Amino acid sequence: MSEFLSLLSPGEALSTLLAHLPAGSPASEWIETAQALGRVLREPVYSPHPLPAFPRSTVDGYAVQARDTHGASDSLPAYLTLVGEVPMGRQPDFLLGQAQSALIHTGGMLPPGADAVVMVEHTQSAREAEIEILRAVAAGENVLRVGEDVAEGEEVLRAGCRLRPAEIGGLMAIGQMQVVVSVPVRVGILSSGDEVISPSEEPKPGQVRDINSFSLSALVEQAGATPHRYGIVSDQPDLLREAIAGGLLENDMLVITAGSSASTRDLTAQIIAEMGEPGVLVHGVNVRPGKPTILAVCAGKAVIGLPGNPVSALVIARLFVVPVIERLSGLRIEPSRPVVSARLTINLPSQAGREDWIPVRLFTQEGDRCVEPVFFKSNLIFNLVKADGLVHIPADITGLNAGETVEVYLI
Amino acid sequence: MSEFLSLLSPGEALSTLLAHLPAGSPASEWIETAQALGRVLREPVYSPHPLPAFPRSTVDGYAVQARDTHGASDSLPAYLTLVGEVPMGRQPDFLLGQAQSALIHTGGMLPPGADAVVMVEHTQSAREAEIEILRAVAAGENVLRVGEDVAEGEEVLRAGCRLRPAEIGGLMAIGQMQVVVSVPVRVGILSSGDEVISPSEEPKPGQVRDINSFSLSALVEQAGATPHRYGIVSDQPDLLREAIAGGLLENDMLVITAGSSASTRDLTAQIIAEMGEPGVLVHGVNVRPGKPTILAVCAGKAVIGLPGNPVSALVIARLFVVPVIERLSGLRIEPSRPVVSARLTINLPSQAGREDWIPVRLFTQEGDRCVEPVFFKSNLIFNLVKADGLVHIPADITGLNAGETVEVYLI
Repeated sequence: MSEFLSLLSPGEALSTLLAHLPAGSPASEWIETAQALGRVLREPVYSPHPLPAFPRSTVDGYAVQARDTHGASDSLPAYLTLVGEVPMGRQPDFLLGQAQSALIHTGGMLPPGADAVVMVEHTQSAREAEIEILRAVAAGENVLRVGEDVAEGEEVLRAGCRLRPAEIGGLMAIGQMQVVVSVPVRVGILSSGDEVISPSEEPKPGQVRDINSFSLSALVEQAGATPHRYGIVSDQPDLLREAIAGGLLENDMLVITAGSSASTRDLTAQIIAEMGEPGVLVHGVNVRPGKPTILAVCAGKAVIGLPGNPVSALVIARLFVVPVIERLSGLRIEPSRPVVSARLTINLPSQAGREDWIPVRLFTQEGDRCVEPVFFKSNLIFNLVKADGLVHIPADITGLNAGETVEVYLI
Repeated sequence: MSEFLSLLSPGEALSTLLAHLPAGSPASEWIETAQALGRVLREPVYSPHPLPAFPRSTVDGYAVQARDTHGASDSLPAYLTLVGEVPMGRQPDFLLGQAQSALIHTGGMLPPGADAVVMVEHTQSAREAEIEILRAVAAGENVLRVGEDVAEGEEVLRAGCRLRPAEIGGLMAIGQMQVVVSVPVRVGILSSGDEVISPSEEPKPGQVRDINSFSLSALVEQAGATPHRYGIVSDQPDLLREAIAGGLLENDMLVITAGSSASTRDLTAQIIAEMGEPGVLVHGVNVRPGKPTILAVCAGKAVIGLPGNPVSALVIARLFVVPVIERLSGLRIEPSRPVVSARLTINLPSQAGREDWIPVRLFTQEGDRCVEPVFFKSNLIFNLVKADGLVHIPADITGLNAGETVEVYLI
């Protein structure tokens, strides 16, 4: 395993982790489409019928036979007999013949015999039961043909997409009231460290409250998974071993935030390594913050050891925990990450050969969208509270310059 | 009211609507902080104590008195007596005197008498109970002072912010286990149109399924509000009047998608106007899609009439329904909308004097992030399914050119 112990980049580290996860499909379930926002679709959806299912007008106007309008103009209108009105929501009960027209509304069904619609703005009502057409239309103009949007049997949704409001609407358009989606991934979360206490307790000198269990639960929830908080585990090897084994058993993946001392982190890595093959794949990632990250797969389940520092833990969880949740959710269509482009207002130096993720604040200056780092010494959680997002500095450059347009990954 | 009936831009139309909404505060409730992800905070949060509450080491190393290390180097180390180890999570039970040092871990409490920490990398263990210091440290180096992150009484969260994972963590850091947030806004949604049927029914010729009730519910849910679907209301004036009055009574705001024919839209506007002062403020917005939008305030509640077309309804709901929800939720801190810059691959012509919102697809070409429109004739919902976002063409230009970098508002 020694080849894994050199420092990988975050991208390489994630690939290594994903490559060792079993390929199998996650569990799925049928749920009401109306409740499926944000869930991951498991099977492709095909339209059982063409859409539209009948020829529809796309405007308010008059259904006609196009050839009757040829040559029509303001000065030389075509005169057509008005034979009726198409009722909304019903099939017209008449046939449209030569030199005839019928009043039709947007979305109305074209009467048999008609092949185009003249917009009401291009007509004039002269005498009763007659309409003047002031502009010619081609066959098919202002009409949606049967199946023009979706053919019968066409794939309308791909397996592995996340259901947004548009997809929910699309499923309704074809009458699919239930939908098969992935069961939410269960993520166990445990905190270790003898200095860590429950946030509901009053800390004594030397103690700090457990932040990570809760900020990480919220992130897991945001990613569409179900967090299970196990609270704080003592750094005693037997207790830590028991907690990790239990958490692995009850969840699809496990996230552990190690205490902040080096000895606690080493103990955590050592116990993870005992939990099954292949064990620890990555111990230490070439990124700031978050160098002491541990990535492991034990008996088919991902185990991620995050730094105890609350800012590092949240930043690194976005890099590793969220992508693993997405993989385990069956998400196959890469989502567009929420990113904002903005102008950097000051230089951001960085050490070449190491990736940096810098908490930043967005603001507007003379109408320009600008971004500046949230400076911090301590990595305290309140620095992330002040941040709108993170700026990425790749390993192969020595920083970003003031004036550059950079991408801000919203948090 | 005639001055409102000319076509306003979407921005002007929204300002008009918001200006007529009552200024009062929405209802609030206390909930568990651990359950508060995505909720809007109602009161500012102040830290009851300084953070950190005790002087902490930011590294693994040796606590020292800085002056004892002055002049120390690899060739001329300072020799300090090792007097103990700082236990994690407890106050050290010894005092650090001159020429003394103590082993300390990241996050450990500085023993009284010490004023700096030397990183373990800059030390060497020579004899038992002695440590060699190879580099000088200044007073305060590698130490977080009491209150350096947050002073006692400092405002750590602002009223009107939406709680993200970082804010949840921040509340835990100060032991605030419950939090006061806005009660979710109740949004009534009703569809009208004689051609519209429930999606669970089989459409007859001339009929279409109700998409909007469901796609808009999902959007409302995404915005953190609670949708109440009232289903489909007939275009008969008495029934429509009764449904709108009931919906207004039971909710904080009402969204109506009108049938697609002009007569149905006019009927909807007319009935909204009867529901209380000031009534219809905007009827028709200078935007494509979505020109027939109705914005009203009736007896203190917003009523928004959306076009029946499913793409128009969803696009326009983002422009008007989401900002009203945010206002009613007490959100005071403008959220960063996810906007991605991408290179437009083809010309997008537009009519000057009118704002356009074009559904677009993102893709990568030779490493470049590119964007192209999802072409559509019909505005069918499946065109939004293919879209990653919307491109905005302002009213004062006649389109965007291929090769330009444009902003894509992710949906």
